[in-house]
Amino acid sequence: MRQVEALRWTSAPAPVLELIDQRVLPRRMVYRRYTAQSGAAGVARAIASMVVRGAPAIGVAAAYGMALEAARRRASSAQVARLALERAAVILAASRPTAVNLTWALARCRAAIARERGDARALAATLESLALRMHAEDIAINRAIGRHGARLLPRGVRILTHCNAGALATAGYGTALGVIRAARARIAQVWVDETRPFLQGARLTAWELVQEGIPATLITDNMAAHFMQRGQVDAVIVGCDRVAANGDVANKIGTYNLAVLARAHRLPFYVACPLSTIDPATAHGDAIPIEERAAAEVTGHAGRTWAPREIAVANPAFDVTPARMVSALITERGVVERPGKSRIAALLSG
Amino acid sequence: MRQVEALRWTSAPAPVLELIDQRVLPRRMVYRRYTAQSGAAGVARAIASMVVRGAPAIGVAAAYGMALEAARRRASSAQVARLALERAAVILAASRPTAVNLTWALARCRAAIARERGDARALAATLESLALRMHAEDIAINRAIGRHGARLLPRGVRILTHCNAGALATAGYGTALGVIRAARARIAQVWVDETRPFLQGARLTAWELVQEGIPATLITDNMAAHFMQRGQVDAVIVGCDRVAANGDVANKIGTYNLAVLARAHRLPFYVACPLSTIDPATAHGDAIPIEERAAAEVTGHAGRTWAPREIAVANPAFDVTPARMVSALITERGVVERPGKSRIAALLSG
Repeated sequence: MRQVEALRWTSAPAPVLELIDQRVLPRRMVYRRYTAQSGAAGVARAIASMVVRGAPAIGVAAAYGMALEAARRRASSAQVARLALERAAVILAASRPTAVNLTWALARCRAAIARERGDARALAATLESLALRMHAEDIAINRAIGRHGARLLPRGVRILTHCNAGALATAGYGTALGVIRAARARIAQVWVDETRPFLQGARLTAWELVQEGIPATLITDNMAAHFMQRGQVDAVIVGCDRVAANGDVANKIGTYNLAVLARAHRLPFYVACPLSTIDPATAHGDAIPIEERAAAEVTGHAGRTWAPREIAVANPAFDVTPARMVSALITERGVVERPGKSRIAALLSG
Repeated sequence: MRQVEALRWTSAPAPVLELIDQRVLPRRMVYRRYTAQSGAAGVARAIASMVVRGAPAIGVAAAYGMALEAARRRASSAQVARLALERAAVILAASRPTAVNLTWALARCRAAIARERGDARALAATLESLALRMHAEDIAINRAIGRHGARLLPRGVRILTHCNAGALATAGYGTALGVIRAARARIAQVWVDETRPFLQGARLTAWELVQEGIPATLITDNMAAHFMQRGQVDAVIVGCDRVAANGDVANKIGTYNLAVLARAHRLPFYVACPLSTIDPATAHGDAIPIEERAAAEVTGHAGRTWAPREIAVANPAFDVTPARMVSALITERGVVERPGKSRIAALLSG
């Protein structure tokens, strides 16, 4: 079993962030290097262009982006370094709009910067150790999500998942795939939605499950209903980019489709997410910004076009599933059934 | 506006069937030629490999295949010709299993052969004129479907359609797209599902609507729910490969998904189909054979693969929508609301 790592960090002799290029997996395994020279702007471009994707992974990548920017400014005055880091946080925050983990990770970086009283070198050391801590925390969080989620699954269960909420979408292990990894002995089958347009299911989730030797079958997104109708799906588990205060869930386009189908076929619909994905500042799903991506993702794939040039295209990258359609949130602090405003507030307050 | 013709027939000096190769549209417009020499087997291969697809179109193509086989045998004895034609009908019937139009078209050919008392030349003439009649009939039927269906649509309507039930799927004009063509002055927007894995929506429906200048927007299959949730879809119209006696509908994979979504969002779900698509010999949807196609269609497209080689794949080409989820069948004989066993029997008896 090959280890799947979306992010790798080297401290010495100079800080380097390596990101596996998720645009070309599984055909090619290429790690792209980001250094103090590329700074935060290089990492922001990597996030925007989906070299790295997945809400938890882009949160950790942003923290490393701040650490690289601080390394770039380590010979400057503390004042210049702080200004550069504030600009870097703005650039990283704007790289993708929907996942709240970016905002959350950058808020932690800003708090650490505010607490640090030393020079630019001290800022660089602080941000590097914070990023490393967030990286390690995310893996531990995913393992806890996996343990809690696995208890929901009976022996012989057949699970459908969408997009990639796996090791590649996180610092390692995965959220939805973390649950699947933790419950692997009990899983008879994983149905993998290909997840057009970016094909995270076909390219990334299928690849992770093959690596793990977990029985998995790839289908197109429009086949999910058919296999539910035939009684071949027992539960749906997805990851998440943002949970609003009322429990509404933004996740990869096609998630709401699955929630409607799960309800129509009386199947549980589970959302696996770290607490960092819950955004108490967003009252409900309608307030979550939905990223619109380039038409070329829909008219073809990876530089090849099959639709006529003149056709109009819509490409919302996410959709919103109302809280009432979520059977449970699976977090590192435990499972919250039928999540709503008060249960989520209680979860966050510990 | 370029004319879209899935099938073209030339009688003299020698019979030739030309089929537009729907596997490479819209990137390339290539007509493939089938002659007396290629016979019925050549046309059967064209149907199986989806050079020509769409239930009504493959019915007419099969009739032309019989005419080519008869032309091939025109110098033989009547007995040899009849045996060859019977073999040809078996081969054509086996080329694809789900659409009943093949069976229906071949039954008409067999009846014409049985009635014809002349020699092999007379058989050839009979089958050619039958195929030409079926071709012309199908266009007239589609125009009638269009007229009846257009009455269901209010001004400013936004329609979602799946796969290609257009001029390319028929002898011309289309069933679901026939309704859209007939109602074009009233249509504000057509949402075109790309229809993985074969991408008939992205490649064929998008192309037909661009040719016609009808406002259309291409989306991936998993976006339909999102636009319904946002109140941007007013009705769903699809074509059909087989209607069972009880009103259950087999159509391109993803159709049942849309029926569930339409019901959850209280939108009408219309099925446009000629009477030849209704199969009184199939009691209900569970008895309709569902074609399983090659894994390579799902792991990539047109020779390019993006999924890992080792992943298992399911590729059912059709699904079944229960009659209770169909708001109305739109046929050349009129609209049948909430179709069930007795209403369908009444429709067929005229």
